[in-house]
Amino acid sequence: MNIEIINTGSELMLGRVLNTHQQWLCRQLTDRGYLVQRQVAIADEGRAIQNAVREAAGHADLIICTGGLGPTSDDITRDLIAELLGKPLIEDPRIAAHIESFFLKRKRPMPPSTLVQARVPEGALVLENRYGTAPGLAMKLDPNPYRADRKPTWIVMLPGPPRELRPVFLEEVVPFLNREFPLETTFACRTLRSVGLGESRVEEQIAPALAQLTKAGLQIGYCARVGEVDVRLVFEGCGAEETVNEAADIVYQKIGAHIFAENDDNLENTIVKMLTERKKTLALAESCTGGFIAHRLTNVSGASAVLLAGLVTYSNEAKQQFLGVPAETLTTHAAVSEATARAMVEGTRIRTGADYAIAVTGIAGPTGGTPEKPVGTVFIALTDGERTKVINPINTFDRETFKYITSQQALELLRRRLLSLDL
Amino acid sequence: MNIEIINTGSELMLGRVLNTHQQWLCRQLTDRGYLVQRQVAIADEGRAIQNAVREAAGHADLIICTGGLGPTSDDITRDLIAELLGKPLIEDPRIAAHIESFFLKRKRPMPPSTLVQARVPEGALVLENRYGTAPGLAMKLDPNPYRADRKPTWIVMLPGPPRELRPVFLEEVVPFLNREFPLETTFACRTLRSVGLGESRVEEQIAPALAQLTKAGLQIGYCARVGEVDVRLVFEGCGAEETVNEAADIVYQKIGAHIFAENDDNLENTIVKMLTERKKTLALAESCTGGFIAHRLTNVSGASAVLLAGLVTYSNEAKQQFLGVPAETLTTHAAVSEATARAMVEGTRIRTGADYAIAVTGIAGPTGGTPEKPVGTVFIALTDGERTKVINPINTFDRETFKYITSQQALELLRRRLLSLDL
Repeated sequence: MNIEIINTGSELMLGRVLNTHQQWLCRQLTDRGYLVQRQVAIADEGRAIQNAVREAAGHADLIICTGGLGPTSDDITRDLIAELLGKPLIEDPRIAAHIESFFLKRKRPMPPSTLVQARVPEGALVLENRYGTAPGLAMKLDPNPYRADRKPTWIVMLPGPPRELRPVFLEEVVPFLNREFPLETTFACRTLRSVGLGESRVEEQIAPALAQLTKAGLQIGYCARVGEVDVRLVFEGCGAEETVNEAADIVYQKIGAHIFAENDDNLENTIVKMLTERKKTLALAESCTGGFIAHRLTNVSGASAVLLAGLVTYSNEAKQQFLGVPAETLTTHAAVSEATARAMVEGTRIRTGADYAIAVTGIAGPTGGTPEKPVGTVFIALTDGERTKVINPINTFDRETFKYITSQQALELLRRRLLSLDL
Repeated sequence: MNIEIINTGSELMLGRVLNTHQQWLCRQLTDRGYLVQRQVAIADEGRAIQNAVREAAGHADLIICTGGLGPTSDDITRDLIAELLGKPLIEDPRIAAHIESFFLKRKRPMPPSTLVQARVPEGALVLENRYGTAPGLAMKLDPNPYRADRKPTWIVMLPGPPRELRPVFLEEVVPFLNREFPLETTFACRTLRSVGLGESRVEEQIAPALAQLTKAGLQIGYCARVGEVDVRLVFEGCGAEETVNEAADIVYQKIGAHIFAENDDNLENTIVKMLTERKKTLALAESCTGGFIAHRLTNVSGASAVLLAGLVTYSNEAKQQFLGVPAETLTTHAAVSEATARAMVEGTRIRTGADYAIAVTGIAGPTGGTPEKPVGTVFIALTDGERTKVINPINTFDRETFKYITSQQALELLRRRLLSLDL
């Protein structure tokens, strides 16, 4: 089955917004055994949209088109696809009523232009949108003039705002897929996420041991990010799940200590889960990461049970007042030093009564570096009250990457302590 | 000039990673007056990559291809494009030496597979990569067999990791563009970012006043996000900058109080800039936003001069200990209440000595809601020591969106206070 995603939006081509739809839709489809072959993004421009749909209809069984269904003048996808397929637009009274009640409920006046969203191409399936005003639409191109074999192509149109697209996909498109495109073969995919080894190193360690399974059709993919490498194991066909699980067992044997999560899980999920299971609590003192570690942990639902407090102490005064760092330590050793990190982490643990504390102090840059302590210098401290460990990586990156990799190192330090891997 | 971006990577099609390259490259190109017509993403798969390049070469003057230049077995872009163009790969001793010294400097052993990155298609331009091991490459397809008019197409290949792709683009591709594709017409683009009005409302207020300029060729784009609407003004041709500036003036006249930033700037940049100009300081107390406001502000270089401290006080004990919220307030009014928000914000300001303080307490969800206080309930407090204001929006969204919109409301509250717009 051939699937193509078309993302419309001039803001995409001008680089104003990040295309999160592509990742989200690809992930949702992959998890259900549907592989996307190609994704195309184009501007909100008549010829470009029609060309993209025509081209995709030449090879795809399913086209998922996002954006351009809203009420403003640059929302032209619905009209253009209807025109391409030669279908008139007809106002659907159910959608019109939904739009009116949507504004009524929110006590907001309805701009008249909003009602264009109730216009539906003749014969189209309406994919209900309870989260916004523009419904999704599905149209079957049958017979399909753009394919040599005339095989039909379904065109699914989804509204652009993520908080509308996502539930409409899950509630309306998934049942539609199961009905129109039932799976023919089994498919399995598992992604093991590792930290602390480079991409080549990971491949060297696991590829020879997986050679047999690779010959049998296992696909291995490596995805290197800052400070982490994902290993993706994919198998299609009979015994897919068993093969992928066997491969994963081999990867765990080889580099298990470096694997911190699987699939959608991330290091913050793992940390919250581990702390919850152990009934342990955590407190944070952040200087250069500026609240990013607290932010990552509090993205996890249930974090409130394990995270007692996070103190973003940028100034020296705040370090003294909230963490009890002695003024002397700051003047003798400076704010970015092992001694300060140690005083921060111990002060944080004692003042919050948490089981574990993490403290971070460093120079995020781009300014503030010195010859002895260049931009990127960080001290990360971890304590459980009995033993305090301080590491001192140099993370020479832009500010955003600096925060990410530093937070990753801090959380990994805690993960290893929780697993007694750092002794 | 026709530009197409091709992003290769099975991890893209499986939805494992977000395609940040597309936005970044489109933005960089747009800012320099180069518009991208189309972007395509495909898996690391031979036929797909060659088809995409062949298709793009049929209409594009410049193809920018990302990813697949690394050392592992799924990095096949360089080989496939060389094959498609009928060019042999030849090891470049300068690149090989660079790779060897790259590992030597980092005191890491060099895996032998790494050296494949020194292989260059015959005749290709090497785009030096000082941030990683794989250089970028540029090849001219001339004559171009895929175009009816045989017009040449340049194919630029860039390494996948963002911290390599970005500097290689800026240092190597930008001068290449200026040399090979000098601009013929003037181009101007300005984006005004507004908060507090819906998309249709923004269009209603500004479109009639812009009608004259629209007739003259001004393009207006609206981009709605959670809690904000971007208005993009674009003009190509003679007098582009003047026309766009005139249009921007009109938009400011109509909805100026709602505009918080332009172009790449965001609300956190605006806040840090405003506080810096006024020599004022800020402190934060965050419960449900979990450090996200501190994170946003500390993403701005120079934030350390205005942000004294951010206290993520998830537990009641932390609210009492670090902010001085009376136990009685918490028991009588509960942690999520106007009284607690008020006590938090006043305690924060007094304890840190900041000029302004913001406090946030609420229910991010998905659990923790009650009939009186449903998930999404938030109290946001702002004080300047003389006057404390508390707002109580209900932000019914997923956890991530909840944090974003709540932080946006909190920062907007401060922006309006700084401009005396909230009186």
